[in-house]
Amino acid sequence: MPRAELEYPKRPLGTVNRYSPRGDLVFSQGDPRHRQHVPHASCLLQLPHSPFPAVLPMIGQMGSFDRASSDEGDVLDLYLHGYVSSRVMNLTRRPATDDSPSGLPVTVAATHVDGLVLALTPNSHSYNYRSAVLFGHATLVETDDEKLYAMELITDSVVAGRWQNSRIPPNKAEMSSTSVLKVRIATGSAKIRSGPPGDEKHDMEDPAVVGNVWTGVVPVHMSLGAPIAGPYNAVDKVPAYLEEYIKSMNEVGVDHSVKAAEASAKPGKKPVDD
Amino acid sequence: MPRAELEYPKRPLGTVNRYSPRGDLVFSQGDPRHRQHVPHASCLLQLPHSPFPAVLPMIGQMGSFDRASSDEGDVLDLYLHGYVSSRVMNLTRRPATDDSPSGLPVTVAATHVDGLVLALTPNSHSYNYRSAVLFGHATLVETDDEKLYAMELITDSVVAGRWQNSRIPPNKAEMSSTSVLKVRIATGSAKIRSGPPGDEKHDMEDPAVVGNVWTGVVPVHMSLGAPIAGPYNAVDKVPAYLEEYIKSMNEVGVDHSVKAAEASAKPGKKPVDD
Repeated sequence: MPRAELEYPKRPLGTVNRYSPRGDLVFSQGDPRHRQHVPHASCLLQLPHSPFPAVLPMIGQMGSFDRASSDEGDVLDLYLHGYVSSRVMNLTRRPATDDSPSGLPVTVAATHVDGLVLALTPNSHSYNYRSAVLFGHATLVETDDEKLYAMELITDSVVAGRWQNSRIPPNKAEMSSTSVLKVRIATGSAKIRSGPPGDEKHDMEDPAVVGNVWTGVVPVHMSLGAPIAGPYNAVDKVPAYLEEYIKSMNEVGVDHSVKAAEASAKPGKKPVDD
Repeated sequence: MPRAELEYPKRPLGTVNRYSPRGDLVFSQGDPRHRQHVPHASCLLQLPHSPFPAVLPMIGQMGSFDRASSDEGDVLDLYLHGYVSSRVMNLTRRPATDDSPSGLPVTVAATHVDGLVLALTPNSHSYNYRSAVLFGHATLVETDDEKLYAMELITDSVVAGRWQNSRIPPNKAEMSSTSVLKVRIATGSAKIRSGPPGDEKHDMEDPAVVGNVWTGVVPVHMSLGAPIAGPYNAVDKVPAYLEEYIKSMNEVGVDHSVKAAEASAKPGKKPVDD
């Protein structure tokens, strides 16, 4: 059962490392039709005077405003959209010091489940999943040009092509009420588990156990249903780009979850406990 | 578009509040067939000497070992299973002080997406979702009885009835290699967004805008596919409890995502930006 831990090179905090294309497994860039999930992420931060880390649910997308033609091998930033409290906004304005670059230190995490892994014994049960964690420094995007770039990136991460098919450009009030966080990545890692279950040899060789317990994987994918028009919709037909996006996301999702279940494994190899 | 923020009563840290049954929206207890998602959660903690909060992907389930017959109105603990590093294990052994109860302060977060909310203008786009955040103190479960209780709870959260249908009880090696974290909840909150999109009046009254942009919700649910037998499976037929679980989860998932999309809303009311 393949399981990979992919890490950014360890570097002193504050240097920007090259973005690993493998982080793209969870935080996608480019065509969202090649992704199998909604890009929701948790943005974690440590607020002063609280023992507990705080968490903000956000939508995230990788991109590079400075080099719009960047590909997966390039240094990318993570743009996050969501409710940004004034407390967080103030924290992002922290000035840089020698030890620490400007911005608020944040951890951004996203996990996507690809299957239920059912083994002989409860201890060997697992999930197939992809999980990415990025560490970086968040600042608020301040120029309108970069904000527009990020807004388009994030809107198209909801539905490919949605930006061009909605009422644009945003007006003044929308521009000023929208906060976008930009995370300069310091380091990060990804974890992937795929493949069939693995059990201990003594269980797999016990006919009473193997003959009684079904083992395998139940593939899991995110499914998009038929669109439900809202109360003031005046466009009778669901647009082709939306129909195509739904179809494509569902096909890719099913395909990925089945491929993850069938990923090669040496039968009998004990899985890493994850 | 109904949007709710449900909060535990604010109390001094370390008092155990009553578990709100509304937190059950994400961290379920009881019959997992009434849930619409895989119970994966992120466990966040602040490690010493790092500016970034750490995050561990885990499986979580609410329960009460001390009062096994607890219902949703009772005080429940959150049991978490996943890879627990020796560093985290050591941190959970922190002794209690007057200011702070024993255990490691952790934040546990889980989010489930119910739909893509497509509005006229990019700024009013959103997701339907349920999100819960719990704050508490984590300790390692130490007695075998409580560990077995938690292992059954967590195994049955993967597939209802799976514990009884797998090779049990765990042997000595399995018991000693398994770590379960128990989080005594100090406080928490939940956020829910449901219903159709909402836009600004001036957009909804502009025929050129309303006539061009399709608005509504694409329901999203987690879908379980046909089970794929593993390499050493020797049970020909997929067991009935598994078939039923898959069928039930898919039905509940579709139903919930459609209900969330259709939740009542006053047409034209501007949504809270979330």
